[in-house]
Amino acid sequence: MRASKYHINTLKEAPAEAEVASHQLMTRAGMIRKAAGGIYTYMPLGLKVLRKIENIVRQEMNSAGAIELLMPVVQPAELWVESGRWEQYGAELLRIKDRHQRDFVLQPTSEEVITDIARNEIHSWRQLPVNFYHIQTKFRDERRPRFGLMRGREFTMKDAYSFDRNEEAAQASYDAMFAAYMNIFQRLGLEFRAVAADTGSIGGSRSHEFQVIADTGEDLIVYNPDSQYAANIELAQAPCLIAQRGAPAEPLVKTPTPDAQKCEAVAELLQRPLADTVKSIVLATEPAEEGGQAALWLLLLRGDHELNEVKVGKLRGLDQGYRFATDDEIMRGFGCVPGYLGPIAPLEPIVIIADTTVANMSDFICGANTEGFHYTGVNWGRDLPEPQVADLRNVVAGDPDPQGGQLAIQRGIEVGHVFFLGDKYSKALQATFLETDGKPALMQMGCYGIGISRIAAAAIEQNHDDKGIIWPKAIAPFQAVICPMGFYKSETVRNAAESLYRQLQEQGVDVMLDDRDTRPGVMFADWELIGVPLRITVGDRGLKEGMIEFQQRRAGESANIPVEQALSHALEQLQSLR
Amino acid sequence: MRASKYHINTLKEAPAEAEVASHQLMTRAGMIRKAAGGIYTYMPLGLKVLRKIENIVRQEMNSAGAIELLMPVVQPAELWVESGRWEQYGAELLRIKDRHQRDFVLQPTSEEVITDIARNEIHSWRQLPVNFYHIQTKFRDERRPRFGLMRGREFTMKDAYSFDRNEEAAQASYDAMFAAYMNIFQRLGLEFRAVAADTGSIGGSRSHEFQVIADTGEDLIVYNPDSQYAANIELAQAPCLIAQRGAPAEPLVKTPTPDAQKCEAVAELLQRPLADTVKSIVLATEPAEEGGQAALWLLLLRGDHELNEVKVGKLRGLDQGYRFATDDEIMRGFGCVPGYLGPIAPLEPIVIIADTTVANMSDFICGANTEGFHYTGVNWGRDLPEPQVADLRNVVAGDPDPQGGQLAIQRGIEVGHVFFLGDKYSKALQATFLETDGKPALMQMGCYGIGISRIAAAAIEQNHDDKGIIWPKAIAPFQAVICPMGFYKSETVRNAAESLYRQLQEQGVDVMLDDRDTRPGVMFADWELIGVPLRITVGDRGLKEGMIEFQQRRAGESANIPVEQALSHALEQLQSLR
Repeated sequence: MRASKYHINTLKEAPAEAEVASHQLMTRAGMIRKAAGGIYTYMPLGLKVLRKIENIVRQEMNSAGAIELLMPVVQPAELWVESGRWEQYGAELLRIKDRHQRDFVLQPTSEEVITDIARNEIHSWRQLPVNFYHIQTKFRDERRPRFGLMRGREFTMKDAYSFDRNEEAAQASYDAMFAAYMNIFQRLGLEFRAVAADTGSIGGSRSHEFQVIADTGEDLIVYNPDSQYAANIELAQAPCLIAQRGAPAEPLVKTPTPDAQKCEAVAELLQRPLADTVKSIVLATEPAEEGGQAALWLLLLRGDHELNEVKVGKLRGLDQGYRFATDDEIMRGFGCVPGYLGPIAPLEPIVIIADTTVANMSDFICGANTEGFHYTGVNWGRDLPEPQVADLRNVVAGDPDPQGGQLAIQRGIEVGHVFFLGDKYSKALQATFLETDGKPALMQMGCYGIGISRIAAAAIEQNHDDKGIIWPKAIAPFQAVICPMGFYKSETVRNAAESLYRQLQEQGVDVMLDDRDTRPGVMFADWELIGVPLRITVGDRGLKEGMIEFQQRRAGESANIPVEQALSHALEQLQSLR
Repeated sequence: MRASKYHINTLKEAPAEAEVASHQLMTRAGMIRKAAGGIYTYMPLGLKVLRKIENIVRQEMNSAGAIELLMPVVQPAELWVESGRWEQYGAELLRIKDRHQRDFVLQPTSEEVITDIARNEIHSWRQLPVNFYHIQTKFRDERRPRFGLMRGREFTMKDAYSFDRNEEAAQASYDAMFAAYMNIFQRLGLEFRAVAADTGSIGGSRSHEFQVIADTGEDLIVYNPDSQYAANIELAQAPCLIAQRGAPAEPLVKTPTPDAQKCEAVAELLQRPLADTVKSIVLATEPAEEGGQAALWLLLLRGDHELNEVKVGKLRGLDQGYRFATDDEIMRGFGCVPGYLGPIAPLEPIVIIADTTVANMSDFICGANTEGFHYTGVNWGRDLPEPQVADLRNVVAGDPDPQGGQLAIQRGIEVGHVFFLGDKYSKALQATFLETDGKPALMQMGCYGIGISRIAAAAIEQNHDDKGIIWPKAIAPFQAVICPMGFYKSETVRNAAESLYRQLQEQGVDVMLDDRDTRPGVMFADWELIGVPLRITVGDRGLKEGMIEFQQRRAGESANIPVEQALSHALEQLQSLR
């Protein structure tokens, strides 16, 4: 491609609303333009990146035996009513009416449509397994779209759906997709991790996320540098940090702690380690009968730990929904304001659940249910009944891994997700097939998503510097750019640039020849911002000595290479580059 | 591709609602599945066709220098308000609200978004010309979606938009697109015609449609078999059929014509040729002031001709909208019921416009504005004033072409359209650039659409027989299919089939190996229905004699070819096939 025939329009400034690097840089590099909040036009350079990602995804999906089709963006509400998601899905599901006032949705995913297709198309065990996928425009009406392509409303996603005869076969389909995803993210040239994940609202019982590692990621990944273990912090089991509960050594003392409501303040006031304190969190669940009182739950965490709301949401009794208790409810249950609450003698019978670490603490400090007072020397069994015990907390870096070694934490951006769905959708839509015994059986399903447009953003979050984007070569809009110095002034330069351009094209290199009539500084700044992996500078000064300059975008160092070796050097460089 | 790894599901019966061949056959062949009225899932075989069409379109657009980007499906209403189309567009424009009750549309086309991009991206004459295109999901909320992909609601379209400095440059862009479209439709292997067309509601002043010739087409194309001339009947100029008006020979006679309201009945009753009669059509235009009376217009056509409403809509005074007059209005203006109306002595001053042929008629017959009576021997100038004259009628087959020869008519399916838009959108959205003199000027625009999914349907309307689809090779889901007889029973057959399959793949042929365990009859019927251009049958009987059978889907004749020539024969066949 010649720059003069292309549309390149870089900006000095990013829009004020762009908070993250990918949003700033894709805008500045002219890869995206905002049409509305969370809705973007992919400009030519941006679309090229998108297509390269799509093609890698498509190739690996096809290699894994998945079959591409294309489901519609606008989907009839009937199917969503059948699955139950018409009711369950919140405001992110954009519901629309056509001219006849019939209900439709703009698809956020396509479980319903594909299950409808499966129940109509698949009749016999002979037709299974099958895995259908499409790469299509999705829409999620985010309340607050932000971060550019990271959390857009309209986006491109690859979603695949496998159908199998039984759970064992479905597991094989899941494993095949897991392997395909590993190939995809390796080919994309991204540093990533496959992490065990919560299945969230989509349901099902087995799930992995594919996370691109980046400091700006919204997800926390717990991993063990010495093993294969990696899990989303939402799911990662937190170990009990006290192997065995110590015997009580202190008496129970009600100690004045005026104005010390947080564990940190109490610990400082009492000159005790934060790890001796226990914090109380009061939750409420709605009553079964209308007009009844909400039930209260007291969760106990060590003062330096954080509540994991996903884990809490799976506890029996809290798994149908919970909320934090109001001050009035707390007063009713504890006779005390927040900040001084504790598990000893609440006013009402309240379920008390201690985190696994708290359950093994002794001589600990907690609120006394009296404003301005905490207890010290609290001991289970002696001062209060033994609690229920559960894993309630987030892992923190340095936690021991029960399998050996220590856990670490890093941030990631979720770009892929594989789910085992079981019969959630096939049951709702009655997607059955005839088994060998002639009896109908429910298909076992898996679903597998990859955020195509999000990958572009995540790649930038992981790969950029103060000059701009550093694309991995597999998804760079162009692999190399030839920058001639004085293209229209020097025939020598022009001939050398054109010759190398032609040779690289013949070798299948996706190369840009910058034949715009711009100053070298502008040209270099543009391509550094756009993030082309390899820059080849052709100038009169170098050519006089028979040299052409090569510079890798990532490493930044440049080297002069004899003209006659330019082609082979370029190919070598592109081979070795990430 | 192996059939056992693919999804093939043909149906014996088409759905009752499928009225046209393409809808019936795409459904039966398993290429599309209905999700809702006018909304389809493209099944794997259907998507393959779509992608092949897309790729040809993309290659030719790129060759013509157009630059691909991707605009969103969901577009903000603000831009549509700015262009005026938010008001002008009818119910086909699907208007939606997001969770914040902000207005959006599902794009039917993208003039607004691209003009917004142009006004933000293009500042100088140096950046022009530029032509942006995208291939994206469109939505038009048809009142009555039907004919499968021919008139769907959600569909795939390629739309391109050119921006130029002035009208002359814009004409060059238009011509380049016209040439690209000629290449595209030639490569698609379709019989087509580029026809001059009306610009319709999208505006602008120059336009061609690309019509795929098919008896089931909804459009009528007027063409001259002996010249390059072709135009949509909406636009095609109808010649005056009487070179010179004859002198009056008959007296004006008011003749009783009881119950003869149509020209056909009058001609029969009076034993005169239909071509001696003139029919009267009364139109009304709304009054300028509220409460005023609608103005009436009398149009005169020869009895055997049909009104062309598009031409009428361009006449001065009728170009702001018109309707047919009501019976009450007709009584008011003519003092007579419809069926006996004529241009002689209406009650009110009414504008009378005669078709060019009518204007040269003499001694003609028309209504007498008295129920049950017609005039014979009517002559312009003698019996009534000379009329205004205009081309009001549709061309009919056999009309002389003023350039020589005769005009013919055929039916077509519109699959592409090129428009010169001028400054319609650039003016509304103030898309200006700085000219060489430093002054802002409006960009001149063109827009160029191709209905990707509609081409698939049109190709079938043009190419099918009672067995199924006959794809042109360029867009067939597979170019060739190998049908082994007894793949799992005969090692000889299996080896020969696998060997040829491998060789064809190595030669870049998109070939299907039908390794399903089905009966030959079922297998053959499937591939005839699906419409693969070349079938290669490998069986024990033939192999014993060293032969493999080849059959072209279109021609239907089969030939036995020696095994060792099978590859070269297949390649030759694919080369020569349409």
